[in-house]
This record gives sequence, structure tokens and C-alpha cells, in this order.
Amino acid sequence: MLHPSVIEQTRISSCPRDDTQPNNDMQLLMDVISRLNGSYALLVKSIYYPGQLVACKKGSPLILGLRGSEHAQRLSPRPSMVGLQSPTRNRLVGFQSQRTDGINHGMECFLSSDAAALVEHTKDVLVLDDGDIVHISNGDLCFFNVQIDGETGGMTPRRKNPELTRLDMEVEQIMKGGYDHFMEKEIFEQPETLLQTMKGRVLFDDLPISQPRVKLGGLMDHLDTIRRCGRLVIIACGTSYNAGLACRPALEKLVAMPVSMELASDLLDRQTPIFRDDACIFMSQSGETADTLCSLEFALKRGALCVGITNTVGSAIARLTHCGVHLNAGAEIGVASTKAYTSQIVVLLIMALALSGDRISSIEMRNEIIQGLESLSEAVETALKLDSKISALASSLENEHSLLIFGRGSNYATAVEGALKVKEVSLMHSEGILAGEMKHGPLALVDEHMPILVVATPDSLYSKMLSVIEQLKARGANLIVVCSENDDKIISAAGRDAVLLPVPSLQEYLQPVVNIIPLQLLAYHLAVKRGHNVDQPRNLAKSVTVSEES
Amino acid sequence: MLHPSVIEQTRISSCPRDDTQPNNDMQLLMDVISRLNGSYALLVKSIYYPGQLVACKKGSPLILGLRGSEHAQRLSPRPSMVGLQSPTRNRLVGFQSQRTDGINHGMECFLSSDAAALVEHTKDVLVLDDGDIVHISNGDLCFFNVQIDGETGGMTPRRKNPELTRLDMEVEQIMKGGYDHFMEKEIFEQPETLLQTMKGRVLFDDLPISQPRVKLGGLMDHLDTIRRCGRLVIIACGTSYNAGLACRPALEKLVAMPVSMELASDLLDRQTPIFRDDACIFMSQSGETADTLCSLEFALKRGALCVGITNTVGSAIARLTHCGVHLNAGAEIGVASTKAYTSQIVVLLIMALALSGDRISSIEMRNEIIQGLESLSEAVETALKLDSKISALASSLENEHSLLIFGRGSNYATAVEGALKVKEVSLMHSEGILAGEMKHGPLALVDEHMPILVVATPDSLYSKMLSVIEQLKARGANLIVVCSENDDKIISAAGRDAVLLPVPSLQEYLQPVVNIIPLQLLAYHLAVKRGHNVDQPRNLAKSVTVSEES
Repeated sequence: MLHPSVIEQTRISSCPRDDTQPNNDMQLLMDVISRLNGSYALLVKSIYYPGQLVACKKGSPLILGLRGSEHAQRLSPRPSMVGLQSPTRNRLVGFQSQRTDGINHGMECFLSSDAAALVEHTKDVLVLDDGDIVHISNGDLCFFNVQIDGETGGMTPRRKNPELTRLDMEVEQIMKGGYDHFMEKEIFEQPETLLQTMKGRVLFDDLPISQPRVKLGGLMDHLDTIRRCGRLVIIACGTSYNAGLACRPALEKLVAMPVSMELASDLLDRQTPIFRDDACIFMSQSGETADTLCSLEFALKRGALCVGITNTVGSAIARLTHCGVHLNAGAEIGVASTKAYTSQIVVLLIMALALSGDRISSIEMRNEIIQGLESLSEAVETALKLDSKISALASSLENEHSLLIFGRGSNYATAVEGALKVKEVSLMHSEGILAGEMKHGPLALVDEHMPILVVATPDSLYSKMLSVIEQLKARGANLIVVCSENDDKIISAAGRDAVLLPVPSLQEYLQPVVNIIPLQLLAYHLAVKRGHNVDQPRNLAKSVTVSEES
Repeated sequence: MLHPSVIEQTRISSCPRDDTQPNNDMQLLMDVISRLNGSYALLVKSIYYPGQLVACKKGSPLILGLRGSEHAQRLSPRPSMVGLQSPTRNRLVGFQSQRTDGINHGMECFLSSDAAALVEHTKDVLVLDDGDIVHISNGDLCFFNVQIDGETGGMTPRRKNPELTRLDMEVEQIMKGGYDHFMEKEIFEQPETLLQTMKGRVLFDDLPISQPRVKLGGLMDHLDTIRRCGRLVIIACGTSYNAGLACRPALEKLVAMPVSMELASDLLDRQTPIFRDDACIFMSQSGETADTLCSLEFALKRGALCVGITNTVGSAIARLTHCGVHLNAGAEIGVASTKAYTSQIVVLLIMALALSGDRISSIEMRNEIIQGLESLSEAVETALKLDSKISALASSLENEHSLLIFGRGSNYATAVEGALKVKEVSLMHSEGILAGEMKHGPLALVDEHMPILVVATPDSLYSKMLSVIEQLKARGANLIVVCSENDDKIISAAGRDAVLLPVPSLQEYLQPVVNIIPLQLLAYHLAVKRGHNVDQPRNLAKSVTVSEES
């Protein structure tokens, strides 16, 4: 709480609402901004301008939350600033503004980089654009947008009328609801979140062939344009990239277009050639991932059709793409992404179904996938019953240094994503390896001491995976195998000592959704048993909204 | 040596040279072949047909070596078979055929999957094609080729006149020449092998602009066709794939085409869409890598233009591609590929130069690269002087469980390839990680205990790597840094405890060739200090000529 005398001073320098020019302290901020390179979201307080706060952003997200009855009519109460703790670490700490005379005049202000940090205080928010400056002083709340003059390089601030948005998020979503950790809650939520993701988008009724069985409102007008593109380029980071990897075979098969995968930072590093006839799919849970966002700007400049898949309505990627799909998976709080991953796969699959909807040759496969989607939630529910078995497995592995995970086809992604989860939360060196590359190096690591997990559910590559298991056994490996129930061939190949993690069998392109469940649980239990902070792993942030600038 | 009475029996069933039909034991082999799926190279001996050997192949390589004065005139001495050890493990053991009456009639036969195993015995070889059957009995050497009848599915053997090839390989190439291990020898050979790879292909004289400065005989007639393709697809396994990864930025920049990277096994698993207007580049040191070869057949069927880059004249990939380039790096014996990797990068770069040769906008960059190529051998020589420093570093790391290697841009490949070398020979769990992905998970593994190597030589991504080093330091990491000499910024960012491995600076696309040297040396010394077999690492073969069949 600021000292009243300080507040008194502030009133003098506050900017009157009808003024179209910023005052001195704003000018100072613009001077600072003009010298900054790269992305930022800044909240500036100064002892020279007490009782005031100036906020600005470029690239990184910044959201202003407003609470109180008046704000819709009048955006200038007389706030002061109070430091607030966000419910999870790794977000910009927000500031709460209140009148300091002790009387509640009806409005408080909150600033944060993430809507989830605001929702327990208010649902009414203003999403700041690049160049926006918010000036909160004890008397007023003013908005400017600063445009750089192309000729002089000078900055011209213009008064801006901000647009209020209502958050589509419930407080329960950011509570643990009886679970010990957000990650655990979000893993167990998946049967429900997957249904939410499919809701209204997949029609499970027996429809005549002429009628489309999937509907993606946000893509409807662009399906034909995407089909006419030369290739699909999936651009993402971390877990979102892995979700793309899981669906690449399905997209290639159903849509019969070349599908390129790009890690967003690598695309920027390489300045990858992107063409006007590319359809680029940007995936990010938060919709604010810095490298993905920069890649989006890169692709927009080159005229590519840009499709967004995010979990956050109103996020930068959702706003800047030409079209897109929301995951509807609900807020994800745990830093290690779980439910967003499975929803991303389902959305990409639905997109593959929509894009191939006019192809007679793929009717059968489309129907199989739709049938599979109908039982997906139940299959995930069944897989979650492995929890106690996996908890015991985690106990036996907790002192290991390494874990190798082998998969191929769609389940190469399962291996990579499983390894990423183990890395992130349990801090164990885990690596996902393409089973087909095993003989080109990784096999040297295999002996009776190295824990190895193999994903070998029945699909078109089943016999290849069986052969992989045989070869690993021949080198004395002790195996953990994700397989289908009562798979005698696998059971006999993996040997008596193997730990089997049986999961329900689905159409092969859906299998990665089910197969990742035991790996998510394994990462979670390993983290708990190794005594690490599950929801806020060492060194990591939920949304990586900064990137290395060159 | 077979018993004389057995030999007597054999003579009866031997096939006379002018006979166009195979005899009974051949018929038996054909029955067996008709039931086999997948790739194989078989040598069959039976107690029922003593004194005889039948060899056949499909997919996997098989080479028959002939020694003696007569063989050019007459391909039917009276050989018997003696087991032979090949100079390196993991090759099909050859058989030596000699007359059993003790008199040398002038010809011996050797069978092996790899020319390097034959060269110390003979340079005259017959490379078997798919469907070829060699029948060696005490009396004769007969060749057949079996064709499957499209209608009946029956097999028709046809007598074949084999074509003799002369190996372009010297015995010294398969000797260790004063080094303890082939891997060590091959690492230190690189200044020389790189010159061999460039010889006659890069013109270092100051030529007028209209004159091309690179010449690739094997590609000359196809350059225009490649330029008109829709994309380049690099298809390979293991180290060869990593060489492609190292050159991808250069190809994208110079040729301005989309460049896709495909692990051969993954391409087959996914049945990746390949189109007629794709130019596919197949890379394999041996030219016989099973998955790469199958991918080549896959791409040929789809009408793509297929380019081969191999180190083995007459190999399957060299023969089946439309055009290509040889590495000329000399036989590589160590299972962990070293000199082939650097030569592959140089060949791809020369190819990038050739493909962009008509573009005025890239003249400056091409000239820089050509200048860099001129000093490349010397730069590698300088980098090799780090040997004793790296040996000491290896001593300090020998008991570690893990090693993380970070790189980005062209040096993402350096990180991945370096980690592969460490995995292969020192059996330490090492992982190459894209530095841009660090914050999306891997950073959680970073603390003062985890050994971390960063590749941060000066290039367009230098400041990003500097920021990566700062962030790693902020998490307490003890770093090993491959950097340029006297790089004060890096030295101060990496801190006092950091181990610096300074290497010469070259044009950025050539830097991966120099940067991999310290990592090859590190893998080598780690392997020696940890007491592992450097040249024949546990579980691995030199050329992976088998794949999992589905």
C-alpha cells in the first residue's frame, strides 16, 4: 500500500481521460521502448513517479483484468497498486489496483501474462496488442498505442479505445479439485477434456455418405483452400510439436499431401523457405509461445495460409492466424502439458478427416477413425486404471539415471513426448528414439541395466515392433512394454521379467492418445517419488513467451 | 577342409558349365527362396550336398571375390570352401574356395557382404544382383538369375554371364597404419579425405563469373532437372541423416527450395507421400543401408528423381539412383562413421553450390564457401590438435552417466551427431538437443551435476547461442564449449570453470565440419577410457543391411 502523501503527488501527474497526448512519464517510457530489441511485456514503476504504473508489450502477452461494476461504463477509477501472487509461479506477477482512501469505488485492475492468473479475480479482461501502453495512475487508467513512423523512425502515441473481452474459463479449472497436483488432475481429466474437444465437431450418428461427419466451424471456409495448397507445414515447440508428429502419418495418409514438421525455433534459425501455397499449422496450448508466434509472423509475411490450433481464446496466435480451431480442453495449469497434448492430436485428426471428407477412397478409414473417436474417452479411462501399477513401476525406476523409449510410426511421437514428460517433471534423462534408427547407434546403450520402454500396440507396424522387442531382448534388455491386452506374441517376446502396460486397442491413428497415458502417469509418479515439484518443474515456465533474440 | 570322399560325391552333382538348367540342390534352394519374405544374403551348406556352397541374395549386399590368373578367362575352377575371418566383425563371414587336391589351380573364391573384407585377398569381384544364385561345387562355379513369373508365380532360373568389377580400394585403407583403432585413424585422416572429396570438383582459382567453380561429373546432366523439382528430400539413416541435417540450412539458403529430411525407416513406416517432382537424395556410406535402399525403391516407383551419395563404387544405391556423387573418402572400417560424415557434408555443400551456380544473388556467399573449402583441410588439422586436451576432458567425464549437447542452425546436426558418436562407442547416454527447444523441457535436466556441451562458434545465430550459454550458467551448469579462439564474449559468459574447445572459424555452413572434430575425439577417448571396443561397439554393425520387415 502506498503512502497517502505519495498518492497526493500522483494525482497531479495523472493523465486526464480526454487528453490525446501522453504526459512526461509516458514520454520517458516511449524513449525506453524505442531502444528495446526483441519481445517484452513490461510493468514499470519508478520512485520518481510514485503511485503510477505503466505497462507495455511487444511480442510477449499482457492482459489487463478489470473488476467492479463501473468499468464497463468508465475506464478511469482512481486505482493504486498492490502486488499480487499469481496461483502458479512463472507468470508475470499481476498488480491489483484499489483506491487508497479505503472506500471501494467499484473497480480494481490486474495485470498478468496469463488469463489463468486473472480468472479467480475477474473474467473481464483487455488483451493488449503490440505497442499498447497502459498508464495507471491514482486517478486514471489511460490507453495508448504507439506506432513507429516509417520515415522518421519517431513514435506517435495515439489514444485507443480498448475492447473488453470476457474470459471463457471457470475458477474450478484453476483449482486442484481433490488432486495433489495440477498435472495429476489434468491427466485424469482427459476422458472429459477429449469429449469437450470433440463436442459438436464429430457426428457419431449413422449419416448418409453425402453428409459430412465432422464440423470445424473455424476452418469451414478454408478447407478447400487448404486442400489446394502444395504442402502442410506444422510449426510448434515442445509438446505441441510432438502432437503434430503423432498426427503426421494420419495427415499424410488421409490428405495425401506432403506434411513438413518444423520446430518453431529451428524454422526461425534456418529462415526456412515458406511459400504462398503452403498451409502452415501453428500449434500452441497458450497461443503465446514466442517462437511459434514469431514463426507465424514469418509465414504471414510470405503469404502462406496460417491455421492456428490453441487452447486459449483471444491468444495472439488465435488472433493472428487466418483460421483455426480451439482445443476446448480447459485451462492447463501444470507446466508439463498433458491434456492439451491429447486434445491437440484429436483436433489434428478431426482436421485430417475434414480435409479428406470429399475422398471416396478414404471413406472406410474415416469411418474407422470416427468409430474410434466415439470410444476414445472410454479407452483413456481404462488406460488410467494402470495408475497403481505404474506407481509401483515408478518406485522400481526412481533411482535410475536414464530411460530410453522406443516407438515408430504414430508412436514415435509417443516415445518422444513420453521422454519429454519424464525429463520435465522427474528430471531423469529420458530419450524418445525412433525404433527404426535403433541399429544406427542407440542399440549400443542397451544392456540389462538400462531401463527401456517400448510402445508396441497393434498397428500396421506391429511386426516390426515385435522384431525390435526380440532384438532388445537378445541384448539382455529388461523391458517395459505398452501393448494391447492379452497380446500373447508380445508377452512371449518380451519375456517373463518384462513389465507390461496393457492399454485398449483403437484405430491406429488414435492409439497415440491412449498410449501416452501410461507415460504421463509414469512421469508423474517418478517426479513425486523423486521428490520434485511436479507442477513447477525446475527451470521451466508454463508458456515460453520469450525467445533468444539474434 | 572337407574329407576327400565327400568331395568325390560332390563331383557327381556339380553343374556342368554349359548346362542351362540348375540341378537338384539348386532346385531346393529356389524352393526355399520362394518362401522367404524380406531381405537376405544367404550362404547355404548342407550335409546332404557336401563340398558345395550355394549363395543367393535379395536386398542385402553380397560380393564374390575371385583370386588367381585364370578367372578372367574361365569362371569354373574346382574350388572347395574354407571359412575365413573378415577383418572387422559384423560382416557376413566370407568363404575361401580352393582345390582340395593340394595343387593350386590358380583361382580362389571369397564371398562377403562388404568389399572391405575382400580387398586384402583380391580386387576382382562380382557384385551379385537380386535373384542371383552362385553355385560353387568342387568342380564348378555357376551363375543363375532367378526371375519370378508374373502369371504363375513360378521361378525360372536363367544362366547368367557375370560381369567382373575391379575394386578401387587399397589394402592400406583397411590397415590401422600406426593408430590403435580404425576410428582414431579415420578421425585423423580427415584433412586428407576432405581434400580427396573436393579433388577435381572445386576450382579454387580466380575464375570469371561466367565459369562454374564447382564440377560434379555425376550430376552435371541433372542439375537443371533438380532445380526444376518442387522440393529436395534427403533420405538417410544415422550419421548420414545427420550430415543432411548439417547442410539443410545451406541448401535452403542457396537453392531456395523446400528441403525435407526423412529418416529412411520412418519414411517407410509412414509411407510418406513422394511425388514425381521431388528430387530425393539418398545418403549412405556403404551404399547398402537396407532402409535407405528400400526407400530408394519406394521413391523410384513414384517416379521421383533419385540422387545417390555413397562412399562405395558399385554399391546398390550407387547403381540404382539416376545420378549421384561419390565421397571418395576411402574405405571406412570403424563402425562409428567419422570421415564419411565430414565428406558427406562437403559433397552436399558442393551440390548446393552447383545447384545455385546460376544465381547472381548468391555469388558472394558461394565465393565465401569456396574460400572456406580451400582452407577446410587446414582448419580440420588445427582442430585435431585439441586431441590431448580432449583426452584429459574425457578422463574427467568417464564416470558420468549422461551428456547433453546443445546446438542450433547447422550445428544442431553437430549436437545430434556428436551425441550419436558418444552413444555408439562410449556407451554413455548422450543426447543432442536443439538449443531453441531447451526451454520446452530439456532445461529441467540442467544443474551443476549434468555435463553439458554447447556448440557456439560464430555464425548468424551466435547471439542466440550466447544467450543459451547465459541461461545454462544461470542454472549452475558446468559447461564445455566448442567456440572460436579468443572469443571473449563466450569466455566470459561460460565462466571460469568452463572447458573451452577452440576451433578455427570458417564460413558458417562449413563450420559443422570443423566443429564435429572435437566431438569425434571426445567420443573416441571416452570409449577408450571406459574400456569399450571402439571399432566394434557393442550391438552394432558397420552397415545396417537388414531392416525390420512388416
